[in-house]
Amino acid sequence: MLNRSGSGAASEERVKEGEASPTHSIPVTTVHAGTRTPHADLVAVEEPLELRLVHGPIDRRTRTALGVTMRTPGQDVELATGFLLAEGVIREPSDLLEIKAVEENAVKVELHPRVQFDPASARQFTITSACGVCGARTLEQLERHADPVPVRTTFAADVIRFLPATLREAQPTFDRTGGLHAAGLFDREGNLQSVWEDVGRHNAVDKLVGSALLSGRLPLTGGLVFVSGRAGFELVQKAVVAGAEVLAAVGAPTSLAVAAAERFGLTLLGFVRGERFNIYTGGERIV
Amino acid sequence: MLNRSGSGAASEERVKEGEASPTHSIPVTTVHAGTRTPHADLVAVEEPLELRLVHGPIDRRTRTALGVTMRTPGQDVELATGFLLAEGVIREPSDLLEIKAVEENAVKVELHPRVQFDPASARQFTITSACGVCGARTLEQLERHADPVPVRTTFAADVIRFLPATLREAQPTFDRTGGLHAAGLFDREGNLQSVWEDVGRHNAVDKLVGSALLSGRLPLTGGLVFVSGRAGFELVQKAVVAGAEVLAAVGAPTSLAVAAAERFGLTLLGFVRGERFNIYTGGERIV
Repeated sequence: MLNRSGSGAASEERVKEGEASPTHSIPVTTVHAGTRTPHADLVAVEEPLELRLVHGPIDRRTRTALGVTMRTPGQDVELATGFLLAEGVIREPSDLLEIKAVEENAVKVELHPRVQFDPASARQFTITSACGVCGARTLEQLERHADPVPVRTTFAADVIRFLPATLREAQPTFDRTGGLHAAGLFDREGNLQSVWEDVGRHNAVDKLVGSALLSGRLPLTGGLVFVSGRAGFELVQKAVVAGAEVLAAVGAPTSLAVAAAERFGLTLLGFVRGERFNIYTGGERIV
Repeated sequence: MLNRSGSGAASEERVKEGEASPTHSIPVTTVHAGTRTPHADLVAVEEPLELRLVHGPIDRRTRTALGVTMRTPGQDVELATGFLLAEGVIREPSDLLEIKAVEENAVKVELHPRVQFDPASARQFTITSACGVCGARTLEQLERHADPVPVRTTFAADVIRFLPATLREAQPTFDRTGGLHAAGLFDREGNLQSVWEDVGRHNAVDKLVGSALLSGRLPLTGGLVFVSGRAGFELVQKAVVAGAEVLAAVGAPTSLAVAAAERFGLTLLGFVRGERFNIYTGGERIV
């Protein structure tokens, strides 16, 4: 018997009245050929999810907090189910006695007593190719080891527009595979200081920042970090901890990335694609 | 005193003689307007990295395997340093007594005795917004809970070319934010069965597969999973465990994705962008 509660499975049912919304409206300033236009825009919501697992034989059931993922809220039961299947924890629907969303950002999963699950075999502190959120840092946790970034430097909009072309030219591998993300460190004149590639965008930023730490160049005051792809919370985290003043991305930011950038005084730019880009936070650094 | 050994920090030094190469050559078949052209192509290398941490006071040093990330080899010392900084484990170069690449896929990190690190505060089994690799499954680990996918279905090249347009039209949120990845389940006629969105590509696939499990539709025999963005190892893992026959991606695959698809008999398509797409493995299903 499977008690299941969560969001609808069919796509047309996904955004129901009262359900978690996958988007969030925020103020943004679009800069196009030197003109600033303030408006409201939608960003994808990104929030942490915890899995609370109840498992073990019927006479000694055990509770294990299985892990946390950053995700778009609204289909948490399906997400948790698919994850448990991919990880080999469950194999069929009857392995789940109950699965339901509890509180805002957690799913409770009761495994059938016959399902073997050994928390000790799960790794501690896993890090991943596309995510530095491990340890599930939220804004509050980030505050424990990061300080707001002071405004020391301004960047001309004309410098921003040449970032994509400069980064792309400097990427040695991308053109050959189409498969690597890049992170570049730029100064206020738009000079490229270093460029790093990886299958994971977050790894590329870790390499950039790690290299700067090893050579005694932290904090990255006056530094702008430019990344291919989108900007999630973890990239903002890494830029803030490194003391960079600007994080600019080719793609869209998430809701939590904008909130974190606002909280720590980081200038966050998105959709940086030549003549046009969006300012999400810290517009005072862009002149 | 910091003993550091690893790859060069400057971009021009990154690919040295004898160093890990960020690319790998594989055979691929490009299909363009019905014509198949076999050739060799480069893919980005994706391999797991382990951090081996030595920490604690001088009289009782402790060893902890800190975690594993999927990454592009070659700048492992910088990657490990940046990760430790972002996670708040280290703050300055002198926190590292030694950091060096050991064996092929591991970095050994000796922390200064003054650096506080509590392995118990590290989470067990962290999952992330863009990665299902947690638990660091490699091919060998995947073999423990997944079987090869039998060839039961063929797909017409004409069906493949309409995947991007169909998925994009069905994505309710992407057009409003530009920030969400999608995964769609298609049948052999190219009919869209379900579509799922998330800030993390891997979460979108988990939702798709989890929904199918909950409604008793696994294995996904005759099913094609189409994803926005690139295809890494973890997406192949999820498709194989679900029993899908084809994984098709808008972007490039990684080296490990190709190896896993080959091993488990999954058809892997990349750069699916209309008239043209690449077949990496399992070409017998494409007619």
